[in-house]
Amino acid sequence: MSRVSVPPPTCLQKPLRVPHRYMFGPGPSNVPPRILWAGASPVIGHMHPEIFEIMSDIKSGIQYMFQTHNNVTLAVSGTGHTAMECAIFNAVETGDSVLTAVNGIWGERAAEMAERIGARVNTIVAPPGGYFSNAEIEKALSKYRPVLFFLAHGESSTGVLHPLDGIGQLCHKYNCLFLVDSVASLGGAPLYMDQQGLIDILYTGSQKVLNAPPGTAPISFSERACQKIFNRKTKPVSFFLDLSWLANYWGCDGKPSRLYHHTGPVTAFYSLRESLALLVEESLERSWERHQKVAEYFSAGLESIGLKLFVKEKNVRLPTVTTIVAPHGYDWKEITAYIMKTHNLEISGGLGPSVGLVLRVGLMGYNSSTANVDMVLAAIKDALKHCHKSKV
Amino acid sequence: MSRVSVPPPTCLQKPLRVPHRYMFGPGPSNVPPRILWAGASPVIGHMHPEIFEIMSDIKSGIQYMFQTHNNVTLAVSGTGHTAMECAIFNAVETGDSVLTAVNGIWGERAAEMAERIGARVNTIVAPPGGYFSNAEIEKALSKYRPVLFFLAHGESSTGVLHPLDGIGQLCHKYNCLFLVDSVASLGGAPLYMDQQGLIDILYTGSQKVLNAPPGTAPISFSERACQKIFNRKTKPVSFFLDLSWLANYWGCDGKPSRLYHHTGPVTAFYSLRESLALLVEESLERSWERHQKVAEYFSAGLESIGLKLFVKEKNVRLPTVTTIVAPHGYDWKEITAYIMKTHNLEISGGLGPSVGLVLRVGLMGYNSSTANVDMVLAAIKDALKHCHKSKV
Repeated sequence: MSRVSVPPPTCLQKPLRVPHRYMFGPGPSNVPPRILWAGASPVIGHMHPEIFEIMSDIKSGIQYMFQTHNNVTLAVSGTGHTAMECAIFNAVETGDSVLTAVNGIWGERAAEMAERIGARVNTIVAPPGGYFSNAEIEKALSKYRPVLFFLAHGESSTGVLHPLDGIGQLCHKYNCLFLVDSVASLGGAPLYMDQQGLIDILYTGSQKVLNAPPGTAPISFSERACQKIFNRKTKPVSFFLDLSWLANYWGCDGKPSRLYHHTGPVTAFYSLRESLALLVEESLERSWERHQKVAEYFSAGLESIGLKLFVKEKNVRLPTVTTIVAPHGYDWKEITAYIMKTHNLEISGGLGPSVGLVLRVGLMGYNSSTANVDMVLAAIKDALKHCHKSKV
Repeated sequence: MSRVSVPPPTCLQKPLRVPHRYMFGPGPSNVPPRILWAGASPVIGHMHPEIFEIMSDIKSGIQYMFQTHNNVTLAVSGTGHTAMECAIFNAVETGDSVLTAVNGIWGERAAEMAERIGARVNTIVAPPGGYFSNAEIEKALSKYRPVLFFLAHGESSTGVLHPLDGIGQLCHKYNCLFLVDSVASLGGAPLYMDQQGLIDILYTGSQKVLNAPPGTAPISFSERACQKIFNRKTKPVSFFLDLSWLANYWGCDGKPSRLYHHTGPVTAFYSLRESLALLVEESLERSWERHQKVAEYFSAGLESIGLKLFVKEKNVRLPTVTTIVAPHGYDWKEITAYIMKTHNLEISGGLGPSVGLVLRVGLMGYNSSTANVDMVLAAIKDALKHCHKSKV
C-alpha cells in the first residue's frame, strides 16, 4: 500500500556535529552558556501568561538598551533583515518617497526593500568608509521630501559609526520619519533613541552585541512613527510583519486581550531575555566603555604590526566591527581561510561595496576583551607570515 | 556626561523561569531533549561549510518528509506564517487571480495575505468541520481561473484532514499552481508531494509533528512552481522571502557560490535537523501509523465518556489535532483553564471560525502516545466533574 518513494536519507543517520569556533567576524558572535542554556528550556505556548511575562521583560530590556520610553517596543520573530522589512513595510506606502543613505551594503538593501513595495526611492551615496554631513542630508531631504530616511548607525560592511546628532531634527523639519539600523552597533556604542537624533524607528539584531543566537530582532517605534503607521491608507504588504498585529501580540496597543497572530519563537525569546539580562547586569555605560577601550587597544595593535585602519577618522570608527585595509600584496581570502584553518577563528572579508578592500573583525558583547584582541592579532601576524605575498 | 535616562529594569535582575508543561494543544508541542540540546550547541557562521552541510541534511530530511524529489526544498527562517507568505509572495504578482479554500482560519489568512499584495482573491467557503469535493473545486477553478489555489491539508482550527487526491490534476488542467498548507498534518498523516495531487508548493512548521521549537518552516517548490516564480515580471515584495535568494542560500540553484542573503537562525537549524533525524529514525510510515492508531484510541475514549467528535466522517479526521464538540452546558474557557491549572496540561478552544464550537487536543510527534491519551482523557473527565455546568 505504501507509496513511499523517497527513501530515508543516510546523512540524517549520522550524529549532528557542531564545531566550537571563535566567532570574531561581524556576526553572529559567540553565545555565552547562560544564553545557550536558556534556549534549551522547555517550550511553552506562544500565548501562555509566562511567555507574555518573558516578552514583557524583553520589552523592558529593549527600552533600556535603546534608551527609549516608546511603548511600541518589541522583538520581531526574525533576523535583522526581517526587522528592516518590518520598519519599511509599515512606514511606507506604495508611491511614497523614500531616501536612503548608502555608505555600505545596508543602505543598498533598504533601498531595494522600499523599491519592491513600490516606493519612489532616492539615495545619497558616500564611498565605503565615508559618511554624510548633516548639510548633505538636509539637501537631500529638501530635494526629495521623503516620508522615511534610512541611515545605518553601525555600517558593519565598512566599519563606520555614523554620527546621529541633529539628523532626527532635520527629518522632523521636513516631516520625515528617521529610521536607524543599529544592528551592528547597539549596546556597543552610545545611542539614545529618545534624546539623540529623535529617532523614529530603531532596530538591532540578537546575534551581535547581545550575543544571542540569530533569530530575533529588537525594534522600537516612536509615537510619531505610530501616528503615521496606524493611519495608513492601505494595509502593509505583510500580514506577518503588520505592526498593528505585532503591537497587539506584544501587549503594546492597550487592548485588553491579545489575539493569535503567529507562533512566536518561544525558545529564541528565552535566549533574547537572558542576553538583555546580561546587558543589564553589566550596564549600558560599562558595555559602551569596554567596547571603546577594546577597539582602541585593537587599533593600536594593528598599527603596531604595520596594518592600516580602513576608517581614517577615529571618532567615526565602529567599536564593534573593525575594518582593516586589506593587506597589500596578499589575497584577503587566503588570509581569512588560513586563520580559520589554523586558529579556528573567524574574521571576514568585505561585504557589498567593501569586498576586496577590507578585512573585518567583530568583537562584540562578551567577545569584546583585550585577551581576544591579543588572540586575533597573533592570528593575523601568523597569517601575514605564512600566506603568499606577491612581490610588489 | 552620561545621558542614560531609562534605568536598567529590575524585572531582568530576576532569573528566567520556565515551567514544564504538557503541550497537548494544536502546537507548539513538547520538544524532546535531543532536539532542545542540539539547539544549545555553539553558534557557527551562517556561511560556514558546516552549516551548509547541516542545511543539506535538512533539505534531504524535508525531501523525505514531503516525499518529493524537488530540488528547491529548504527551510524558511520563520514560522508557518512566514512560509505561507513566502509561498504567496513568490507565486503571485499584483493583479493575479488567487483562489483559497476556506474551511477554517488558514484559508482566511492565505486570502488576506494575497489581498495585501494586490491579488484578486476569491474564496470557496465550507462551514467549520467541512471540506470540499473535487467537483466544487473544479467549478471554482473554472470560474475564477486563478494562478494559485490554496488548500489546508490539516485544518488545525477545525480538525479536518482534507483529501488531496486529484486536486493537483485539476489545478494543472486549469493552469494553476496548487499550494498546500500542511503545518499541522505533515509527518502525522500520509502525504506524497510528488505523487499525490501533484502539489506545487508545500510547507509545514517545525513545532508540530517535528517537535522542534517554533522558528523554522520547511517548504518545497515543484519545477512548475519554479518556472512561474523564476520568470516573474516583477520582483516579489519581500527581499527576505525572495525565492531566488533563498534557493541560492540553500544551494538549490546550481550556482557555484552562495551569496550573503540573511543570517540564518543557525541554532534553530540544529534543532530542525535533529527533529528530521528523529523522523528518519522512526520512519514516515511508522509515524503515520502511530498517529492514526493513537487518534483512533483517543476518539474511542472521548466517545466512551460521552463526548462527540466535531468532524463526523472518520476518514477526514486530522490524526494530529482532534476537535471535540464543546461540551454542552459548559464554558469551554473554564474547562481549558481548569485543565491547565490542575493538570499542568494545555488543550485549547477553537480558533477563528471554530471559536466556541470546539475543544482542540493536539498529540503530535513524540506526544502522540496512548499513555498521553489516557492522561488527557483523565484531565477532561476531571474537568467535566469540577467545572460549572449550567442546568440546561
